[in-house]
Amino acid sequence: MDRILMIPGPTDVDQRVIDAMRRQMIDHRSGDFRVMMRELEERSRRIFQTENDVYLLTCSGTGGVEFAVANLVDKDDRVLVPVFGVFGERLAEACEFYTRNVVRVEIPLGRAADPEVLKKALDENKDVNVVAFPYNDTSTGTICHDLEGIMRICRERGVYTIVDAVSILGGRDIPVDRLGIDVCITGSQKCLAAPPGVALVSFSERAYEKARRKEKRPHYLDVTKYRHFMRDRSETPFTPVITIFFALNESLRIILEEVGFGKWVRRHEAGAEALYKGLERLGVSFMTEPRYRSPTVIALNPQQGIDAEEIRRVMRERFSIMIAGGLAKFRGKMFRIANIGNISQQRILLTIEALGKTLNILGVKADVEEAVNSCKEVFAGRWPG
Amino acid sequence: MDRILMIPGPTDVDQRVIDAMRRQMIDHRSGDFRVMMRELEERSRRIFQTENDVYLLTCSGTGGVEFAVANLVDKDDRVLVPVFGVFGERLAEACEFYTRNVVRVEIPLGRAADPEVLKKALDENKDVNVVAFPYNDTSTGTICHDLEGIMRICRERGVYTIVDAVSILGGRDIPVDRLGIDVCITGSQKCLAAPPGVALVSFSERAYEKARRKEKRPHYLDVTKYRHFMRDRSETPFTPVITIFFALNESLRIILEEVGFGKWVRRHEAGAEALYKGLERLGVSFMTEPRYRSPTVIALNPQQGIDAEEIRRVMRERFSIMIAGGLAKFRGKMFRIANIGNISQQRILLTIEALGKTLNILGVKADVEEAVNSCKEVFAGRWPG
Repeated sequence: MDRILMIPGPTDVDQRVIDAMRRQMIDHRSGDFRVMMRELEERSRRIFQTENDVYLLTCSGTGGVEFAVANLVDKDDRVLVPVFGVFGERLAEACEFYTRNVVRVEIPLGRAADPEVLKKALDENKDVNVVAFPYNDTSTGTICHDLEGIMRICRERGVYTIVDAVSILGGRDIPVDRLGIDVCITGSQKCLAAPPGVALVSFSERAYEKARRKEKRPHYLDVTKYRHFMRDRSETPFTPVITIFFALNESLRIILEEVGFGKWVRRHEAGAEALYKGLERLGVSFMTEPRYRSPTVIALNPQQGIDAEEIRRVMRERFSIMIAGGLAKFRGKMFRIANIGNISQQRILLTIEALGKTLNILGVKADVEEAVNSCKEVFAGRWPG
Repeated sequence: MDRILMIPGPTDVDQRVIDAMRRQMIDHRSGDFRVMMRELEERSRRIFQTENDVYLLTCSGTGGVEFAVANLVDKDDRVLVPVFGVFGERLAEACEFYTRNVVRVEIPLGRAADPEVLKKALDENKDVNVVAFPYNDTSTGTICHDLEGIMRICRERGVYTIVDAVSILGGRDIPVDRLGIDVCITGSQKCLAAPPGVALVSFSERAYEKARRKEKRPHYLDVTKYRHFMRDRSETPFTPVITIFFALNESLRIILEEVGFGKWVRRHEAGAEALYKGLERLGVSFMTEPRYRSPTVIALNPQQGIDAEEIRRVMRERFSIMIAGGLAKFRGKMFRIANIGNISQQRILLTIEALGKTLNILGVKADVEEAVNSCKEVFAGRWPG
């Protein structure tokens, strides 16, 4: 471990995942490819807990969101987007290319969408037929703490739903079919612990039917093409990023067959609890209210008089630990620590220790030992192995 | 060399390119990334022979085409697309999402666009302001033999140009600025001999200005975002496929600094000449008229009574050489041999020898030795080393 990535993706990947990429190219229209692809499709369905198709696209997570919107949102649709960070903004902006009818519901910094807020917004906008939102916004470190409640309201109202779960799926249990999510998106480089380059997008049958009825869809993002190639041949319509497909397949094998999906999720949960405890002891303050605190990305305010960018610099230069700054309009206003992918006790303890020492270097009193011990207590009680 | 890929991408890549991917992830918002990115940007400009920006996108070549069209084509534009294969069809279809005014110029099978054909079409469609075409259509193995003449006409008429050079840039000299191509596209997995996953797209200033004036652009494909991140920080707006960026950078280093770009192109030329000579001696017939024959993809008719798919099967099972079949509407009607990327005498000789033996196995007389010797003669005269 030369450097530790504690940023919200990409994350450090297992050496076996890197080794899976040491392969010569193969023909993506051959039996060799299809064997791998069928495994990948089946594993993706298990991660999403869906019987529906999960499309594998060669693009970033944002590209996966564009795919969702490009197919599901039509010019006469009215889309409601709860905004509680940069990724909500992006989602609203993505929708605006396909329809002029986008309603943004702004939520105060440090909180995320709630069932009550959504209910009220839908009552005030009776013509909304699509609800799109990030489940977890990494820019603000907030999560919708009651996804189940939100989805219940969406189902009752019969609206179509797009859930951007890019930074959370695999780090939390998201039973897509049981919750009735129409389109759900994640990326290879977040909680699935593979390198970036692949977006995974599930599509319910009713969402597919809506997409199919759309008059026209962008050529590269046309879900009907993906469905045709996937169902008829276990192929992709356009040349896929084969190397990253190899990597993702290996990473999903490790998650599902070696670690076990339940344990993988519980590691994220235990890791989050330890990090929040340790950080609290170091005296940094959180940008988010307790119930909205993301288990995968922690957004922090440095102590008074300390520059967040200085903290990042010392962490990087002295301890080789990479943490994130604020994104877009939050640049310079916060720092962020991610808990994504290959969560381990060691990584978390090293991070807390390094941050404590960094604060001391910058002239802030912080009891490093106590903070590290509070993490260890969490691990002793609930680390899933 | 366990298996030889002689398909129109992906191609076999150099072991050093595969080794370049044996790296742990890095933060794409860090100095480490930017150092690599600046190299990649500079090398990409040299390959395109342009002073303008070359954007690096995480998607397939078709995604790069979508990016070109999504930014350059607006709802009131009238786009002319010469169609001489599946990729022309795709290009026209991609344009149709952004404008209803697409004029297809159908060109007979075995030929490609000519300056005269284009001139006539532009005279008949005075309101055309964008011309979009594949320079080389791999589905039919045809190339526009007079790109210079075509571009001269486009410049004279002042139309914007989109040139899909996905399957040819790097395998032929395409001086983008000198020819005045507004938007030119290629993919990492073709003549640039890297794995798939990255599209490279050059944008002229006037094309950028047109794109910027467009009322709205899809979020993931918005060229203004790519420009902002590239110019201000040598970054990409969304998480890039870092692993393939490493690979592409190494492959471009080999092409430009180790082999030399001129020699790289001449290898493609000498390889093409040898393949065409050898194939002629084997008695298979070409789908294309001589002047339109692509140097990177050769489209062939099997001898009478022989099934193209049988040829592919024997080549694969007996000789471990992968060649391509027909694409889309050409499925089952032809077979194709590519001459892309790491062109070597050995690969070509093995391919010709295997195809000759395959024909013999299938009951067709073919003088394998003579065919192999005719390739060797070409190499003796003009292999650039």
